[in-house]
Amino acid sequence: MKTITAETITIGDEILYGQIVDTNSHFFSVALDKAGVKVVRRTSVGDTRNAILNALHAAEQTADIVLITGGLGPTKDDITKKLLAEFFDSEMYSDEAVLQHVTDLFTSRGRAMNDLNKLQAWLPKKCKVIHNAVGTAPGMWFERNGKVFVSMPGVPHETEKMFTEIILPKLRQTFQLPEIVHRFIKVINIAESALAELIEQWEDALPEHIKLAYLPSKGQIRLRLTAMGASASVLHQEIDEQIEKVKPLITKYVYAYGEDEIEQTVAKLLLAQGKTIATAESCTGGLVAHSLTTIAGASKYFLGSAVVYSNAAKADILGVNPDTIEEFGAVSEETARQMAKFARQKFKTTIGIATTGVAGPDGGTPEKPVGTVWIAYADENGVSAKKLSLTKDRILNINMTKNFILNYVRIKLLGGDADALVR
Amino acid sequence: MKTITAETITIGDEILYGQIVDTNSHFFSVALDKAGVKVVRRTSVGDTRNAILNALHAAEQTADIVLITGGLGPTKDDITKKLLAEFFDSEMYSDEAVLQHVTDLFTSRGRAMNDLNKLQAWLPKKCKVIHNAVGTAPGMWFERNGKVFVSMPGVPHETEKMFTEIILPKLRQTFQLPEIVHRFIKVINIAESALAELIEQWEDALPEHIKLAYLPSKGQIRLRLTAMGASASVLHQEIDEQIEKVKPLITKYVYAYGEDEIEQTVAKLLLAQGKTIATAESCTGGLVAHSLTTIAGASKYFLGSAVVYSNAAKADILGVNPDTIEEFGAVSEETARQMAKFARQKFKTTIGIATTGVAGPDGGTPEKPVGTVWIAYADENGVSAKKLSLTKDRILNINMTKNFILNYVRIKLLGGDADALVR
Repeated sequence: MKTITAETITIGDEILYGQIVDTNSHFFSVALDKAGVKVVRRTSVGDTRNAILNALHAAEQTADIVLITGGLGPTKDDITKKLLAEFFDSEMYSDEAVLQHVTDLFTSRGRAMNDLNKLQAWLPKKCKVIHNAVGTAPGMWFERNGKVFVSMPGVPHETEKMFTEIILPKLRQTFQLPEIVHRFIKVINIAESALAELIEQWEDALPEHIKLAYLPSKGQIRLRLTAMGASASVLHQEIDEQIEKVKPLITKYVYAYGEDEIEQTVAKLLLAQGKTIATAESCTGGLVAHSLTTIAGASKYFLGSAVVYSNAAKADILGVNPDTIEEFGAVSEETARQMAKFARQKFKTTIGIATTGVAGPDGGTPEKPVGTVWIAYADENGVSAKKLSLTKDRILNINMTKNFILNYVRIKLLGGDADALVR
Repeated sequence: MKTITAETITIGDEILYGQIVDTNSHFFSVALDKAGVKVVRRTSVGDTRNAILNALHAAEQTADIVLITGGLGPTKDDITKKLLAEFFDSEMYSDEAVLQHVTDLFTSRGRAMNDLNKLQAWLPKKCKVIHNAVGTAPGMWFERNGKVFVSMPGVPHETEKMFTEIILPKLRQTFQLPEIVHRFIKVINIAESALAELIEQWEDALPEHIKLAYLPSKGQIRLRLTAMGASASVLHQEIDEQIEKVKPLITKYVYAYGEDEIEQTVAKLLLAQGKTIATAESCTGGLVAHSLTTIAGASKYFLGSAVVYSNAAKADILGVNPDTIEEFGAVSEETARQMAKFARQKFKTTIGIATTGVAGPDGGTPEKPVGTVWIAYADENGVSAKKLSLTKDRILNINMTKNFILNYVRIKLLGGDADALVR
């Protein structure tokens, strides 16, 4: 089956100057990917003749489908429309149905229409007009030499509705599109290069039609398997088989085969096991609690957190022994252990976890440099603790500690060897 | 003065397929706009030879500055690096300093280095190597015919640091850039349309070379004034004058004239007044504490938080009267007042604040629908409380509550009428 390719062109000075975020490009990427169309380039240009014409010519060389947004509407002087007429060597005409629609929209909103608004109905003869149910600027569909060009408004909700309801079904009629199946493997607590080494042989043995991508973000990596073919059910089965093969190599680093984030994985395990959790947080400052409570229904397993930033609070709120802090310091195994134990006791939960560390940028010492963190975990079997050596970056350290401790909880809940984790 | 133009090229299949949001393009747009460089095109291409080379050739025709991210690193097979060497007709060599830096990074993290990692030091001879302080992939600076090409890693926090600290200063040395002065007016707790109406006349009277942009985000709006001219000191003075004019119209909605976020504004006021704060959080789940502790040195004014998600925790940890919760409910003025009062007492702070509400999507009732939130504030003068009616969206409600209560604290610290705030 021939791969169908697409390019998107988003038009607008406000994108180039960073005044608005170009959400249309990302929307098209996601929607086309799901539909089995391969996006090969995204371009953003300003509201100028040469830039737009160059982009159209370049796209015609590159892709089967060209999706264009922006540069429509009276305040833009309808530049995209005029240039598309020029590009396709088309005369313009005033479309009765569009004029009626624009008139109706203004009437229903109780607003007066001006001459500029009437120009919305002025369109290239060679396009098929696409109805805009929620706005005044119509879409335009052009075909030339087996390629399709579609121009849509710049306003995201107008474009998204028009694309989903009209354009995508028309593209499916025009082109024969393959099935595409994606699956994530979400990996934590391992460097990209070490992971690549672990799975190198498996990756090299993947069949031609299944691709692997590495998508790293703050302290974790998402692996994405993408399979393309004629039958979705066959592709799902093939991906399942590949996942079974790779599992033994990386199981202790994987927290989800699918869409879940680490906090959702932990939440599901807690719910399934009927367990509850509380946190005692120093260096993470409430982020572990916040991440667990972004999930709807969190109150079923999350009972609370003591964010004990000061030494006095560690003693007064949680009951940490002031002598322990005095002797070993706030950032120490002993303090972390007591924090976890007392979090569990105070909140009356199955599990208590604790973080205490030097997030930075200041506060480091030769023995405890910035990035030194102790985490601890308490349950009915006792308390365990772990030292982490992280980075010099405050925000990254806070996030990496959150990810590490949630993964530690995950492995404990699964009965695995959480203490084998290193960071 | 000649306008200096730029094009950005972001490389990665994961961008085109919609698996990650291309934040680097937007970051460059904002940063270059601030620096007086005109972005004329943004291009995203996949990890393929032809697409990348085509993009490089096209950019060379278009712009004075070409910023490239992605396609570096061992798992990408370092495709960008190899193609830049080809594009600039350069041999490769192994850079001792980079190899040492990569080795040090692995050593400091207690991890083993493999052959793939060593390849990070393999670089084109014709580039000036740019140090990556927070990662292993170095940047590369090329010059040809008065044009500058810079390649940076794809990981946003690495790119942002490298661009801000090294690349932008080097661009300022290389090109003569106009003076551009930006100033933010950060506004909270008012709708965009209402704000526009309040400042309409002031906005219309702005001189030609001073532009105003509305940049809305989660529950707040940033107004940005941009002045362009020959003398920065004159521009600063002109902006100061405009701000003095608009101040009387919007003062109660403004938390910062400048870069500060609301938590930084509050932090500075607390430090200046020698006051300390603690939070008691239910619906915000630790987000208020987390936002205050993202700031370096937070321990000087932030002592801790009791995240009391369950009713039992509200009573056990904070000392809220169980009868109060029984009679009025966890989401009530009475409970919020006790939470703030006891947070202040337990953590021994000048100020205690509290949040309790129905974040959603479930848990609403006819009397207390989703989006109902009570906040409270306690200091030496007593306790005040405020009811908010927010949205149906859980994440938005959590963020709006955080913003509202921090703004409430700000106005209290300034001796203003915080209770006049409505949401």
